[in-house]
Amino acid sequence: MTMEFDLVPAGLARAIEELPLVDHHTHGAVARDLSRTAFEEMISESDRPVPGWTTPFDSQLGFAVLRHCAPVLGLDPFCAPEEYLARRARLGADEVNRLLLGAAGLGHLLVETGYRGEELLGPSGMAQACGAPADEVVRLESVAEQVAATGCAAGAFAGRFAEALGERTRTARGLKSVAAYRCGLDFDPAPPSRTEVAEAAGRWLDGGGGRLSDPVLVRHLIWEGLELGLPLQFHAGFGDPDLDLRRADPLLLRGLIELAEPTGVPLLLLHCYPYQRHAGFLAQAYPNVFFDVGLGVNYTGARSAALVAESLEVVPFAKLLYSSDAWGPAELHHLGSVLWRRAMARVLGGFVADGEWSVAQAVRVATMVGVENARRVYGLG
Amino acid sequence: MTMEFDLVPAGLARAIEELPLVDHHTHGAVARDLSRTAFEEMISESDRPVPGWTTPFDSQLGFAVLRHCAPVLGLDPFCAPEEYLARRARLGADEVNRLLLGAAGLGHLLVETGYRGEELLGPSGMAQACGAPADEVVRLESVAEQVAATGCAAGAFAGRFAEALGERTRTARGLKSVAAYRCGLDFDPAPPSRTEVAEAAGRWLDGGGGRLSDPVLVRHLIWEGLELGLPLQFHAGFGDPDLDLRRADPLLLRGLIELAEPTGVPLLLLHCYPYQRHAGFLAQAYPNVFFDVGLGVNYTGARSAALVAESLEVVPFAKLLYSSDAWGPAELHHLGSVLWRRAMARVLGGFVADGEWSVAQAVRVATMVGVENARRVYGLG
Amino acid sequence: MTMEFDLVPAGLARAIEELPLVDHHTHGAVARDLSRTAFEEMISESDRPVPGWTTPFDSQLGFAVLRHCAPVLGLDPFCAPEEYLARRARLGADEVNRLLLGAAGLGHLLVETGYRGEELLGPSGMAQACGAPADEVVRLESVAEQVAATGCAAGAFAGRFAEALGERTRTARGLKSVAAYRCGLDFDPAPPSRTEVAEAAGRWLDGGGGRLSDPVLVRHLIWEGLELGLPLQFHAGFGDPDLDLRRADPLLLRGLIELAEPTGVPLLLLHCYPYQRHAGFLAQAYPNVFFDVGLGVNYTGARSAALVAESLEVVPFAKLLYSSDAWGPAELHHLGSVLWRRAMARVLGGFVADGEWSVAQAVRVATMVGVENARRVYGLG
Repeated sequence: MTMEFDLVPAGLARAIEELPLVDHHTHGAVARDLSRTAFEEMISESDRPVPGWTTPFDSQLGFAVLRHCAPVLGLDPFCAPEEYLARRARLGADEVNRLLLGAAGLGHLLVETGYRGEELLGPSGMAQACGAPADEVVRLESVAEQVAATGCAAGAFAGRFAEALGERTRTARGLKSVAAYRCGLDFDPAPPSRTEVAEAAGRWLDGGGGRLSDPVLVRHLIWEGLELGLPLQFHAGFGDPDLDLRRADPLLLRGLIELAEPTGVPLLLLHCYPYQRHAGFLAQAYPNVFFDVGLGVNYTGARSAALVAESLEVVPFAKLLYSSDAWGPAELHHLGSVLWRRAMARVLGGFVADGEWSVAQAVRVATMVGVENARRVYGLG
Repeated sequence: MTMEFDLVPAGLARAIEELPLVDHHTHGAVARDLSRTAFEEMISESDRPVPGWTTPFDSQLGFAVLRHCAPVLGLDPFCAPEEYLARRARLGADEVNRLLLGAAGLGHLLVETGYRGEELLGPSGMAQACGAPADEVVRLESVAEQVAATGCAAGAFAGRFAEALGERTRTARGLKSVAAYRCGLDFDPAPPSRTEVAEAAGRWLDGGGGRLSDPVLVRHLIWEGLELGLPLQFHAGFGDPDLDLRRADPLLLRGLIELAEPTGVPLLLLHCYPYQRHAGFLAQAYPNVFFDVGLGVNYTGARSAALVAESLEVVPFAKLLYSSDAWGPAELHHLGSVLWRRAMARVLGGFVADGEWSVAQAVRVATMVGVENARRVYGLG
Repeated sequence: MTMEFDLVPAGLARAIEELPLVDHHTHGAVARDLSRTAFEEMISESDRPVPGWTTPFDSQLGFAVLRHCAPVLGLDPFCAPEEYLARRARLGADEVNRLLLGAAGLGHLLVETGYRGEELLGPSGMAQACGAPADEVVRLESVAEQVAATGCAAGAFAGRFAEALGERTRTARGLKSVAAYRCGLDFDPAPPSRTEVAEAAGRWLDGGGGRLSDPVLVRHLIWEGLELGLPLQFHAGFGDPDLDLRRADPLLLRGLIELAEPTGVPLLLLHCYPYQRHAGFLAQAYPNVFFDVGLGVNYTGARSAALVAESLEVVPFAKLLYSSDAWGPAELHHLGSVLWRRAMARVLGGFVADGEWSVAQAVRVATMVGVENARRVYGLG
């Protein structure tokens, strides 16, 4: 992971390289071997195919895998996809995970387990593979869907959900809402009444439960989460085609942010691409708002410095965090770390080269964003 | 058109310079001599005047004309507008077109003929002037307006339009919709019923036809186009004041994209400025979406590398194309090519200089975006 | 304020450094000494606290104060906030203002007096401190609120307001609307009827007057302003949490811009962050639209060149202006000037280094944007 940038002061580059990053929103790595098809599906946010004359490797993320992960597996950078996949298969999933996760330089992980978590390493598996403590972030909608799956009367839903959430979060460090996917962020921000919740639960459970997308229930889950007091993460911006990007603009959360301000619960806006400037405005305006550019860093590869730069405009430096939002191949956990470090070195090194910041300021901000801010928000000690 | 960039590897710069670009969305060049006023009106998207103390040359596009076209006409770069226009007048339109179009380095042109096409060179004239094959792209709304102009009963409109479209597209390579101008992209995406179409046609024809802007008819044209199966272009983003830029955001096409997905018809989002990141998201999410940053490249001149860079973030590299959207002065056809090549050399050269891409990868992506992707989408062989 | 940039031609850097800037939208500097808390509140747009483990100095604006203002007060750049505030306190407000305002290099100021103007230096105080003429810009809503405060019957409001506005603007150079804060820019653009105005005034005055936010009255003020014929400024984009950023997008003003076009009154969109590209589109499309990136330059500090660059894309160069939007500490007036000059030198110097612009073109555009355009729009002679 050694970086060589002509314009970046050596002390800054080294300090950033050595940061024990807190990845405040990630998922598990897959523990099983992956076919070419399976691997390629996991380096795209789309569930649809690319044109037949190309492969998912023909993208910024694909190029970044070949550039930065190939050397970790003992290959030349920029090798062919076939060569990369053959080496990956020969080494086997355990060794690939050990190499890529071990070289990510993580100090702490917060692992969100709510999306197909049974196919992936859980927090303890990730802790072992990364050599760093890992705690859990619980997805609100998954808890509710599990309650529905066990059979539940409409009138009992609210109580059963509260109980299940209390149980599931006994050792968790945070909560997550995927309202952006389920109903869009333009929902009515006020907490729904007991009657509204019971009615909506009735409609949902009568329909057999399953994917929870009723805005009344989505809001109820959020307000139950706020009650609990754990930091609450929101998916915002870029994601899979399931999402209407227009309705994933974090500015749509303004009403909820203002209503939730008295609770003192930190709200963490995840990813936000291409709305990172909107997120910066919110983080500047409201004391309870924090954000990251997680997923977008991996997906923009050689362009990720542009996102990181845009995230460092109006935000107070204590309000920005690091995440990878990796899910599945350990390449994504590794790249999140490598690309973020390279982007921060370029952007902050540029401020220094321009005569605008001192090296000491740059090191301090990198440490805040990569490590300290998350430790404070989540109370990681 | 020789480029000299300190940071761009010579092999990459040369490869990009020599690409036989496919301009997948352009219009004809004017064949007649132009007065100063006429020329200046054609280097602005606005139909309104600039302040009296300035001229349309005081813009990125104006500066780019003086920088890149003046040498082609035998003048120093950065000459005065008066000098440029005098030389242009002395050479005459034919010679100006021969020089500027001949030096654009085009391999194939798709010429959209639906906007004041009678004032411009048609596909065969453009082919001759550019020394490259040229095919036609047919504007849906123009075909419908021609049907109305010949006299047509409301009940016969749908049939007459289908017939005319079939006739007009016998040798065409693509279709174009200007829904963004006519009713905004936030139209109901579903195909309208026969009754709705007949009623809307009645209202329109009773009013004397003319400019077609009824959303029901605009949608009908789009669905007739999808039926036909030719690649379908949509104006999106930047254009003239006729357009509400908020309603030209390509994200508004999400509903139509999903409904049209089963047809397999490629949808090509044109220009998209300043929404190029939104277009990249759509191209990543949906197999039937492609896009370019055409018109914006000319209009942002010295800043066009920024647009090109933003277009290369989350898009699969097989989903991005080149276009000039030139209309009128051959300067626009020439600049589209020159500015795109310079921007690609700077952006991809930057990825190489940063150690993120190999030269071979950069050459391959430039070739895909400039030539191959369009050849495949339009079946140009 | 000497700038040293390797890539910027010396002649361009010097020309930009020596421009007698017209700050076409600023406020007064505070004349009294400021406590640490008071100072820190004034270098944030938020009225809420930052996390307890940090201070408002941990931001781009805070870093810019330490980098660029500390040397003006005789300290090393990048000193500690405590050291800076101690020196500031020792020098006293008068001397601090003399040093920072005197070194801003201003040629003319337009001072908006409508927000807590009584706590600040007025136009004549600013003229003296800056050594340059200063004229007033009158905030429409403040005039209306003063009319209400003196007691006014609903039916008399329109007349009383017109009278007060005429009185207050006898020597003013411009008007300002804060519709973005009061009702959002998505208001009905048409002038309200006399009856509507009287009814809305009745509701407002019956409620005791105070903060005017009724959209009917906000529109009435705007149309009265247009009638008067003075250039009319609109806050757009970035501001304090009072504002819904989604409803501060300048594209929302399209309807008003078109209705106001026949009046010939220049409309000046202020700040616009992060919507500077939207503002550029409007300035390109409509002859009556001008804009700046004022407030955003200070708040993005080391990143301000990115904003300036984005503002120079499709705008005709005669349509862009300079402002600081400084309010309170003289640091903001000083930084507005220093950061804008550095940003322009970097951006235009980059165009020259790229071989896209000549030095003469760059000097000319910097002079237009920094000085000439405002002189012409406001008739400053």
